[in-house]
Amino acid sequence: MEHERIVILAHEEFPDRAKTALGVMRYGTQEVLSVLDRDHAGERVHDHVPDIADAPIVSSFEEAAEAADGDVDALYIGIAPIGGGFEDSWRDDVIAAIEAGCDIVSGLHYFLSEDEDFVTLAAEHDVRLWDVREPHEDLTVAGGNSADVDADVVLTVGTDCSVGKMTASLEIVEAAKERGIDAAFIPTGQTGIMIEGWGNPIDRVISDFTAGAVEEMILEVGDDYDLLVVEGQGSIVHPAYSAVTCGILHGAMADGLVLCHEEGREVVHGYESFELPSLPSYIDLYESLADPVHEASIVAGALNTRGISDDDDAAEAVDAYAEMIGVPGADPVRDGAEAIVDGIVAGLDSGGETR
Amino acid sequence: MEHERIVILAHEEFPDRAKTALGVMRYGTQEVLSVLDRDHAGERVHDHVPDIADAPIVSSFEEAAEAADGDVDALYIGIAPIGGGFEDSWRDDVIAAIEAGCDIVSGLHYFLSEDEDFVTLAAEHDVRLWDVREPHEDLTVAGGNSADVDADVVLTVGTDCSVGKMTASLEIVEAAKERGIDAAFIPTGQTGIMIEGWGNPIDRVISDFTAGAVEEMILEVGDDYDLLVVEGQGSIVHPAYSAVTCGILHGAMADGLVLCHEEGREVVHGYESFELPSLPSYIDLYESLADPVHEASIVAGALNTRGISDDDDAAEAVDAYAEMIGVPGADPVRDGAEAIVDGIVAGLDSGGETR
Repeated sequence: MEHERIVILAHEEFPDRAKTALGVMRYGTQEVLSVLDRDHAGERVHDHVPDIADAPIVSSFEEAAEAADGDVDALYIGIAPIGGGFEDSWRDDVIAAIEAGCDIVSGLHYFLSEDEDFVTLAAEHDVRLWDVREPHEDLTVAGGNSADVDADVVLTVGTDCSVGKMTASLEIVEAAKERGIDAAFIPTGQTGIMIEGWGNPIDRVISDFTAGAVEEMILEVGDDYDLLVVEGQGSIVHPAYSAVTCGILHGAMADGLVLCHEEGREVVHGYESFELPSLPSYIDLYESLADPVHEASIVAGALNTRGISDDDDAAEAVDAYAEMIGVPGADPVRDGAEAIVDGIVAGLDSGGETR
Repeated sequence: MEHERIVILAHEEFPDRAKTALGVMRYGTQEVLSVLDRDHAGERVHDHVPDIADAPIVSSFEEAAEAADGDVDALYIGIAPIGGGFEDSWRDDVIAAIEAGCDIVSGLHYFLSEDEDFVTLAAEHDVRLWDVREPHEDLTVAGGNSADVDADVVLTVGTDCSVGKMTASLEIVEAAKERGIDAAFIPTGQTGIMIEGWGNPIDRVISDFTAGAVEEMILEVGDDYDLLVVEGQGSIVHPAYSAVTCGILHGAMADGLVLCHEEGREVVHGYESFELPSLPSYIDLYESLADPVHEASIVAGALNTRGISDDDDAAEAVDAYAEMIGVPGADPVRDGAEAIVDGIVAGLDSGGETR
C-alpha cells in the first residue's frame, strides 16, 4: 500500500514519545505534510528534530487538510500509548480524515477495523482502515525455502528488546544503497510496516506460522534485490519474546547476522532479574541455533550509544564492542552504517559459498 | 473440563489413523463407553488394541447412547484428517450427541464453534462445543515467573516433530506417580489437552504469547504438585516450528530436560533436505539456549524404537542412545519410563540447587 502524501497524528506526544511518527518521518518515502499535536500547534518539526524533513505542526486534521488543499492520501497514527488503546480525543481527526477520502493506518492494539463507526464511515467514503498489527489470513507454516531467493539475506539480531534493531536495519539498507547495492528492508514490526507500506507483524501471527510469515516476505521480494535486510525482533534469551526471535532466525535463513546491542545494557529490559549473557555467548547461541537450518555468521555489530553524550566516548565504546565481537561495528545512528556494510560484504563474500 | 463418560468418534480410521482417540483411551481418565467407526461396527477395541481398556465399536452415536442408557457426558472427535477439516458424514453423530445433551470436544482446525447449525443446537441444549485448538482470550506475554512454583519442572524436548514427546511425557508422569511422586502432565497440544481436559494449544497462540501461554499453565497448577512434566513440541532446529519449541523452553523454565528421539531418524520429518544435527549438538543447543533464562540440563532420554521389531535390537538401540547422551534412557512405550524417572530424580537432586 503506497501513500505519497500523509499526515501523522502524534497528539501530546511529539517528538519524544512518538517513536512511530519519527520512524516514518526519518525512513519512510511518504511526504509528511504535517504533524498533528495539539500541544505544539503552530511550531514546526524542525523546532524539535532538526535532521528530518521539516513540516508544520497543527492541532487538527481539518487544519492539516486545508493547508494541503485537501490533497492528502492517508492519516497515520504515529503514537502508541501504553496498552495500545485508541484515545477518544483522536476520534474527530480520524473521522475528518475518512470524510476527506483518506486511508487510516494504525499500529495500535485497538483495531480501527473493529470500530463500527469507523467501518461504516470508511465504507461510505471507500477508504481503507489498515491495522498493521493484524496479520493477513493466508499465512501458513514455513517450507524452509528462504535460502532459494537470489538475494543475500542479512538479519539483525539483538542482545535484548529495544536496542535498535529496526533502526540498524534501515540504516544498513541506506548505506548499502549508497554503495550501489540493490538492497531492501524486510519489516517485521508495526513501525517498520508503516514505513515500508507492507509486511507481516511477526509478533502477532499464530506461533506455528512465525517462520512462515518471514519466509513469505522473503520469497515475495527476494528475487528482485541483491540484499535483503530483515528487521529482527526481541532476543534469543528473552524470557517472553524468544519464540518470535527464533522463528525469524529460522524463517529468514539469513546468510549473515548483525548483532545489535545497547551500550551499558546489563539486564533484560523490563525483566531486570534476568542478566544478559556475555557477547561471545550471544554469538555462539545465534550461530549454533541458525546452523542446522541455514549456516550464518555474525558479520557485523551495531552498538546503540544513546546513553553516551560525548562523541569520543561513544566512538571508544563502539571500538571496544567491535573488538569484543571480532567483526566491524558502528553506532548506525551516530556513525551511519558504512562499517556495518563493510562487515556484511566481507562476511558474505567469505561465507556465501556455504549456501 | 471434566467428562467422566465419553464416546469417541473415529469413523473409518480406528485404530491406526486415530491417534487422538488412542491417546485419550490410553492416558485419559475418562471412561470410554464406545468408539464410533462404521467400518468396524460390531467389533471391539480389544480386537485391534489389546493393551487399553476394552469397549464396543459401533456405527453411530445413537447406538452408543442406547447401549449406555443415555448416560453420556461428551462426544470426542478422535481423528484428524489431513487438513483438519470436518467430514460431513460425521454431522449426524454430532447432532445426535448435542441433542442428547453431550458436550462436543474437537481438536480439528475446523472450529465447531463457528458452525452455525452446531452453535444454535448447542445453545438450545445447553452443551459446550469445545474446540481445543482455539486459545482462550486472556493470554498474554510471559513474566518470567515459572521457576517460582513449588514443583520441579521437567520438559520433553525433541530432535524433531513426531518422535513421541507427548507419549514420553505421559509415561513419565505415570512412572513418577508409581514411585510416589505427585506428578502432573502439562499439555501443550490438542491430543494432550483432550486427554487432560485443560491446557493451552501453544502452536495456535499469538507468537508473542508463546512463552506466556506455557507459564500461565505452570503458575496455575505448579504449587499443587511436586513434579510437572511439560509436553514439548517440535524441535529447536525445525525450519518451521522452532519458534514454538523455543517459547515452550523459555516459558517452562524447566529444571530438567528429557531428550526425545526416534531411532533411525536422520532428516527433518517432511523437510527431508534438512539433516538432523548430532545428538551432542542438540544437548549443547537446548542447554545453552535454556541457560540465560533458567539453567537446565538434559537429565534423561526417551528413544522411540517403533521401527525396530526385535526387542533385543530395540534394547540395544536404547542402550546406545543412553550412552551417547550420557544420561539414563528408555523407550517409554516398550519399557515404561522408570529409567527416565531415575534420570530425572538424579538430575534434579544434583542440579536443583541452581534454581
